[in-house]
Amino acid sequence: MNDFSERMNQYKSAVEAYLESRFTEELPQRKLFDAMRYSLLAGGKRIRPCLVLEFCRVCGGDWEKAIPFAAALEMIHTYSLIHDDLPCMDNDDYRRGRLTNHKVFGEAMAVLAGDGLLTAAFSTAASADADAKTIVDVVSVLSVCAGETGMVGGQVLDLEGEGKHLGEEQIWTIHALKTGALIRAACCIGVLAGHGTENQLAAAGTYADSLGLAFQIRDDMLDVLGDAEKLGKATHMDEKKSTFVLLYGVGKCAQMIEKETQKAIDALDAFDDRDFLICMANKLAIREY
Amino acid sequence: MNDFSERMNQYKSAVEAYLESRFTEELPQRKLFDAMRYSLLAGGKRIRPCLVLEFCRVCGGDWEKAIPFAAALEMIHTYSLIHDDLPCMDNDDYRRGRLTNHKVFGEAMAVLAGDGLLTAAFSTAASADADAKTIVDVVSVLSVCAGETGMVGGQVLDLEGEGKHLGEEQIWTIHALKTGALIRAACCIGVLAGHGTENQLAAAGTYADSLGLAFQIRDDMLDVLGDAEKLGKATHMDEKKSTFVLLYGVGKCAQMIEKETQKAIDALDAFDDRDFLICMANKLAIREY
Repeated sequence: MNDFSERMNQYKSAVEAYLESRFTEELPQRKLFDAMRYSLLAGGKRIRPCLVLEFCRVCGGDWEKAIPFAAALEMIHTYSLIHDDLPCMDNDDYRRGRLTNHKVFGEAMAVLAGDGLLTAAFSTAASADADAKTIVDVVSVLSVCAGETGMVGGQVLDLEGEGKHLGEEQIWTIHALKTGALIRAACCIGVLAGHGTENQLAAAGTYADSLGLAFQIRDDMLDVLGDAEKLGKATHMDEKKSTFVLLYGVGKCAQMIEKETQKAIDALDAFDDRDFLICMANKLAIREY
Repeated sequence: MNDFSERMNQYKSAVEAYLESRFTEELPQRKLFDAMRYSLLAGGKRIRPCLVLEFCRVCGGDWEKAIPFAAALEMIHTYSLIHDDLPCMDNDDYRRGRLTNHKVFGEAMAVLAGDGLLTAAFSTAASADADAKTIVDVVSVLSVCAGETGMVGGQVLDLEGEGKHLGEEQIWTIHALKTGALIRAACCIGVLAGHGTENQLAAAGTYADSLGLAFQIRDDMLDVLGDAEKLGKATHMDEKKSTFVLLYGVGKCAQMIEKETQKAIDALDAFDDRDFLICMANKLAIREY
């Protein structure tokens, strides 16, 4: 357990140091950089970049070389939060205990900060110290998982579902795309960066799908049961949205988290050194924020 | 001249056929695809994709293989228009003679359609039938030119400059980033796709910079002098913005267009077959919409 925290901190520090070094040039569009950095450096659990680095490592790769890929993923995650919070979307004032991007920098700048981060994810990935084939594979996974058949597609389904009574399958699809796709990207990109086998790539995808689902169910539970202070955002906000808790109730949700967490752990047979990834799954299943 | 129109039409048709084939899957997020296609297939001059294909061809490359790169560029250009037109940005109701994206699909969907197109540009580029090194170089140029030190940076400077009296250097910088960067990307990506020399890459950049500047000055002139019907959007709308016409007057602007067009043409010495690119520069200098 201590090993987990230590490695997690090592990964987080490395990714944050890299992110901290970006968008610092003294250029006329300095305010854009401020807006991008405001959200990018707002803390957060950094789960996705840590998954990139650990999957790279367990495949025998040099995780430090995968830092730009990890950072690219965090840029995409961050841009999606900025755009999600916009008045025309979820209209949230707080995120991670701080004012949302548009509350500080205005709507126009928030749109552009999101656009800037999304675009920078790809220049960052392209700049990695890796062979060209690996970079192309990473760009491909990243853009497909973040795009119209992945995260952005899920965001649309989520918006369209507001105020409607959604069926089980629809809710599963929304979360598989909106949250799941980027977690899948993280795990698979780690394997690509570490030159893992096809078998390991498939296993990482399976782990990611179950981890992502458990993560989302836990998210829904925390939204109902959670402590606003710990979460850093208003709770009970998603009442107009169909959630796993509304669909199944709290008890069944707890069981589902347990089941998906076990499925994630079972998928790790393809890797020799699985302690960190097992611990990650167990920790996320019981997280409080 | 006839050769120019013929080749231009050939390129346009090829790119439009490719774009037409995209985002057609019958998926639950179909409405997102509709919104993306609405703006992507709204006509437009398709200058950027045609520059990609022609620069590829004059470097001895197979321009048909560069179509995904050309389409990626058009996706980025289109997303930038959708986000520019948003109420929190320029708040435009019409574009190319049709209602803007958010007027038809709503603001939230317009933000997401833009995000989807920007992301899809990179999955499209990554899917091209080209060697991995070329794809990485293309992704790199595309993301740097479209990103925080390119187009998005220019958009921020443009917004911040609204209602202010800007100096000559500031206006040049805004346009170099906001319009120029993507035209530069188009020309350079064409050379990369055609495996041109370093010398040709530099020449394409010089051509692009002068062409882009002439293009923007002509744009400013048309905004003042133009015919709203031909332009398909309201004219005189940019009065709150500092433009080349406000700075230099119409007469000086006409001279500058001539000078920059000549500079663009002079840069073409690095290529054997320059007729199309010369004609492109001359046509853009006198365009009416």
